[in-house]
Amino acid sequence: MTSTVLPGSKEPNPSRMIWSERLRTDFDLNKMHEFLEGSFQESLETLRIMQQLERDPILKTNQEYYEYDKLDHREQTALKIARMAQYIETDAPDFQTFQSRLNLIAIVDPQLGTRIGVHLGLFLGAIHGNGTDSQYKYWAYERGAIYLKDIYGCFAMTELAHGSNVAGLETTATYNKEKRTFVINTPHIGATKWWIGGAAHSATHTVCFARLIVDGKDYGVKTFVVPLRDSHHDLHNGISIGDIGQKMGRDGIDNGWIQFTDVEIPKEYMLTKYATVDDDGTVLEPPLAQLAYGALLGGRVTMVTDSFRTSERFITIALRYAVARRQFKTGGRKVENQLINYPLHQRRLLPNLAWTYAMSIASHQIQADYKQVLKSLDEGVNTEDFKSLSTVIDSLKGIFADSASLKSTCTWKCLSLIDECRQSCGGHGYSAYSGFAKGYVDHAVQCTWEGDNNILAQNSGRITIQKVIKFIKNGKEPTGNYSFLLDASKEGELLTSDNLLNLDDLVKAFDSLILRLSLNGIAKLKENGHDWDAIASEKLSLSKLYAVRYMLSKWCFKLKNDHASSSSQDGSISKHLVKLALLFALSNIEAFGNRFLEFKVLSPDSYKELEKVIEQVLSDIRPQVIGLTDAFKLSDFFINSVLGSYNGDVYNDYINTVNSLNDPSVTKAPYSSALEYMLNRGSLDARDKHERSDSVLKKLSS
Amino acid sequence: MTSTVLPGSKEPNPSRMIWSERLRTDFDLNKMHEFLEGSFQESLETLRIMQQLERDPILKTNQEYYEYDKLDHREQTALKIARMAQYIETDAPDFQTFQSRLNLIAIVDPQLGTRIGVHLGLFLGAIHGNGTDSQYKYWAYERGAIYLKDIYGCFAMTELAHGSNVAGLETTATYNKEKRTFVINTPHIGATKWWIGGAAHSATHTVCFARLIVDGKDYGVKTFVVPLRDSHHDLHNGISIGDIGQKMGRDGIDNGWIQFTDVEIPKEYMLTKYATVDDDGTVLEPPLAQLAYGALLGGRVTMVTDSFRTSERFITIALRYAVARRQFKTGGRKVENQLINYPLHQRRLLPNLAWTYAMSIASHQIQADYKQVLKSLDEGVNTEDFKSLSTVIDSLKGIFADSASLKSTCTWKCLSLIDECRQSCGGHGYSAYSGFAKGYVDHAVQCTWEGDNNILAQNSGRITIQKVIKFIKNGKEPTGNYSFLLDASKEGELLTSDNLLNLDDLVKAFDSLILRLSLNGIAKLKENGHDWDAIASEKLSLSKLYAVRYMLSKWCFKLKNDHASSSSQDGSISKHLVKLALLFALSNIEAFGNRFLEFKVLSPDSYKELEKVIEQVLSDIRPQVIGLTDAFKLSDFFINSVLGSYNGDVYNDYINTVNSLNDPSVTKAPYSSALEYMLNRGSLDARDKHERSDSVLKKLSS
Repeated sequence: MTSTVLPGSKEPNPSRMIWSERLRTDFDLNKMHEFLEGSFQESLETLRIMQQLERDPILKTNQEYYEYDKLDHREQTALKIARMAQYIETDAPDFQTFQSRLNLIAIVDPQLGTRIGVHLGLFLGAIHGNGTDSQYKYWAYERGAIYLKDIYGCFAMTELAHGSNVAGLETTATYNKEKRTFVINTPHIGATKWWIGGAAHSATHTVCFARLIVDGKDYGVKTFVVPLRDSHHDLHNGISIGDIGQKMGRDGIDNGWIQFTDVEIPKEYMLTKYATVDDDGTVLEPPLAQLAYGALLGGRVTMVTDSFRTSERFITIALRYAVARRQFKTGGRKVENQLINYPLHQRRLLPNLAWTYAMSIASHQIQADYKQVLKSLDEGVNTEDFKSLSTVIDSLKGIFADSASLKSTCTWKCLSLIDECRQSCGGHGYSAYSGFAKGYVDHAVQCTWEGDNNILAQNSGRITIQKVIKFIKNGKEPTGNYSFLLDASKEGELLTSDNLLNLDDLVKAFDSLILRLSLNGIAKLKENGHDWDAIASEKLSLSKLYAVRYMLSKWCFKLKNDHASSSSQDGSISKHLVKLALLFALSNIEAFGNRFLEFKVLSPDSYKELEKVIEQVLSDIRPQVIGLTDAFKLSDFFINSVLGSYNGDVYNDYINTVNSLNDPSVTKAPYSSALEYMLNRGSLDARDKHERSDSVLKKLSS
Repeated sequence: MTSTVLPGSKEPNPSRMIWSERLRTDFDLNKMHEFLEGSFQESLETLRIMQQLERDPILKTNQEYYEYDKLDHREQTALKIARMAQYIETDAPDFQTFQSRLNLIAIVDPQLGTRIGVHLGLFLGAIHGNGTDSQYKYWAYERGAIYLKDIYGCFAMTELAHGSNVAGLETTATYNKEKRTFVINTPHIGATKWWIGGAAHSATHTVCFARLIVDGKDYGVKTFVVPLRDSHHDLHNGISIGDIGQKMGRDGIDNGWIQFTDVEIPKEYMLTKYATVDDDGTVLEPPLAQLAYGALLGGRVTMVTDSFRTSERFITIALRYAVARRQFKTGGRKVENQLINYPLHQRRLLPNLAWTYAMSIASHQIQADYKQVLKSLDEGVNTEDFKSLSTVIDSLKGIFADSASLKSTCTWKCLSLIDECRQSCGGHGYSAYSGFAKGYVDHAVQCTWEGDNNILAQNSGRITIQKVIKFIKNGKEPTGNYSFLLDASKEGELLTSDNLLNLDDLVKAFDSLILRLSLNGIAKLKENGHDWDAIASEKLSLSKLYAVRYMLSKWCFKLKNDHASSSSQDGSISKHLVKLALLFALSNIEAFGNRFLEFKVLSPDSYKELEKVIEQVLSDIRPQVIGLTDAFKLSDFFINSVLGSYNGDVYNDYINTVNSLNDPSVTKAPYSSALEYMLNRGSLDARDKHERSDSVLKKLSS
């Protein structure tokens, strides 16, 4: 009994509902977690790190987190960064484990992940990608930046008036032959470096993107290490920095602006893997400059993982609440029905559950591909083997295309998932303690930074169309992740009521739609004089369809290859994975229904049938929703929501949190007197000393 | 020159672009404003009130607002409430003007509107709707609540475990015959009143929704005035209240929880317009109880207006920025292209502009209808004319249906509009000073409160289907806003490339889709044994389609009747209004493309044509976007965004605001030492006093 209850009272008991459903879980959670993490070993590793994080005294993140203002967030984040720095030392040289730590702590504290990610991924990533080996060794190891020591780096790319168009940046780096220095300058307000994470108060150094000017000639944007502060955190001369202040979310990040006024740096601070300036000012640029950005794709790849992890968290909260919460008596029941029993509620949440599973597949696949390419890139550059490097360039292009589509599609989906989950929790989803609010505002920026989603989607869509053009026109067969175009069907209905539950046929339907939509785009291009901007809508659809197809096809492959075994052997997980894959496919056909119908991949009648099939699949999945979210193995530390704790004691968790953070014994607010004054004020007449009364007016007119 | 610029520098000049487009506006802004506000008189009244609000020293809301924490918001809101209370006194008895003040101040400070709206609209609205005339007169006028005097009311409906299902509330009001009192009690935690706006620290009284229990019999939920605090703001015995703390947004509202422990109130505090209890405990309930909620529909109606006003603000910011911002050189241009020139950017923003115009029509129409019904209701109840009351009940049902569809559709649209506008401003949209962040989190709750959008949409969809059932089965012709069903076409393609620009035919296409989708729903109902929950998806689509059709048809009516006159006479606004109406219709056909294609209202080929037509209409509207948003006449006070000021000096506005709120001369953060300690730390070995060194290990093993 958590509080006194009189006889006859019908106190709600949400825990009981959660537990009774949990006990009916009919598959092996460990096996499912292995599927989600990629292998037994990875499952174990994830849990091991999670346990270490949640037990750490400084990394703790609890409900108080939702009360923090900007300064609280920044202070706490600084302490956590210092703590994480100690983990790097013991993890080294295994930086992969440290990266997993960052990805996992980002589930509950995304800004912490970003703060360190900017230093390791962007600052050091840029030095790694653009600098020589010696340069990387000096800044990363000799100085200790790789251990978050001595140097705290930021990444000065974006400017106030320039974001996506990196080639248009206006900061200059002018070579001074006499002194063998570069002079870094911000020519005007529009070229002020802006949004620079860590710049406001933390960074000691930055990688600055600036136009290389030699003898008055502009050689385009190159990269330079520029010291900003000394070891006492005092600013160097010529460096002006400001805090850009309050943001939608992630207030733990001290984003800042930087203006450089004739800041002189040694010539050797230029990063010179792909471009060098001789002492006499001759600029050399080997033809591999396109490799420079390879290291920076890591951010996009990580965001696919982020979207997966964040979705795990919020769909768990929403589904636990949907099981725990009752609303309206229906069908002659004595008690109110659980939210999750309503078909509309299933329609709102279960496709998002299926998406979460799909994103786990995308995350592991692209992480693995990316690691492979980086490894080949390093080997190729080190051995100067130009032949293997050209293969690497192709692979890098593949990662660029995949990550453009997956980063934009998954971050958008995750954002809409958080909002749908919040709305599905009704009013309580609006409480900060539900976690949705901070989750939403923190995730929102993922759709914009490191490649604006709309621009990335345009890139991805264009690449698909170009593959089709090359194939159709020049007979160049598409390879790798585009090889499906080879056998994709140009016409005819592919889905009927007979094969709506056939996963292979569903994949083929996506293959075909992508081809048909591309061909339509090509026809439009011909009509409009090859204006790619005029087929923006087609490119946008293509990018999203590519991502869905990517995940669905990899999912089917996994099901066939890893889980063809008997049900007892796989812990009975396959049957659920098939249902989720079907739901993923079918709900996306519905979401792109206009395109599937426009290009006659299915007929209006089959589309009607599709809606019925979806309802069936939803009700098949419904009984296992607690198990299917428990399988994420997120402890209450990672859930951090009054609505979604493991025990499901929603109402007690909620009121206890509210009261612990807002002491009910403080019954008067500091502003109480303003209201009392208002309520107890005299009449307007009296306050005006009756100066508009008839008697006064009479006096005044006599 | 806002700061020193050296020769040759190419400082961006966004103002110049805004102004050059502004000067090309080819229609009369005043006439357009009249269209948006409904008439010349209303246009004037709106501007008069706006001017008064923005000049008021206490109601000021500026960029500092985005820095406020919860307590700041609450303090400022209390001061503003007290200020608004003075306006009520001088506005009275014209409460319509005061309501307009609230609606307009809510553009920049939504929480202020809510705080007062809860008192006037919900608390007094409930007393008006459920109480007798004498009861209303006492609480509202004799005590002074209508002037925000003496009494500050809140609205204790929702409970922790009960939101949408009002009939399931569990708070009890037990009649005590001997003492002629009611005893109000919260039986358990689930029945704790929750989310009660104004309860935490402000309210002196509440209208409490509680089950009437007489002699052990439960008569269902009735309403009671219950005092909470005395005039010193001290809590009465038996009243437990807490602050429910941090929320996603609207932190200026002190939402609270209330538990009643055997709180005794005089029998006369029960609101008895539609239910009375005799002294001996006999309960009388006249058959008009369904009128009780009439006064409460006001909240939903107001939210249509809120969605319109909020959309005006955010689409203005996004479009001004889209004109002012350049990105990428295209088509051989010397300077970068303006964002708004990209077809994708037009596709993202201009349909939202069209929606904003459509919502103005919805807002005025439903406000007018609602006022008319309330007037008839008051007259009917006062004269006890039951015949006219039954007509009023029909009208009230009409408002219920319209407001369910419009509230849910418009608040959802406004939320997605804010987010799309934010994303369209790239990274800068993520700055709190852009206004989008607070705008989004504040608006988000509109989708949930006073009727959860999903539940309202289900109600609306069900009503449409029921109208069709009655018409088809019983031949009862639909009237009023449903009369379009009479002539709606059950089959055949209605749109081809020939009539995609014919507004009347576009309306007919919506008419037809609504009928066909309803018939499909009816067929499904038959199949599944009349389980309305099983056709949730159809009902959801129907509700949204109904709203779009409502706005589009009223828009066409206005164009035909108010603007049939010559172009010179109407200030050349009609041609633009026609384009916007077309865009509204066409982009919604695209948005519901799966339904239009599923029900063969247009063919796949016509759908392809539709996409081309949309592009044409977008480029027609493009040149007037500055004029079409200037026509909202929102001064910089109401815009309150660094990205969207009238003069469009985006970059200077932005950096000046950032620096005025985050002093760049404070170069070190309070947490600087934590980072310095981390960066300057010794090696792990040294910090561990070398206790893992070989020499130590040797000692330990010898």
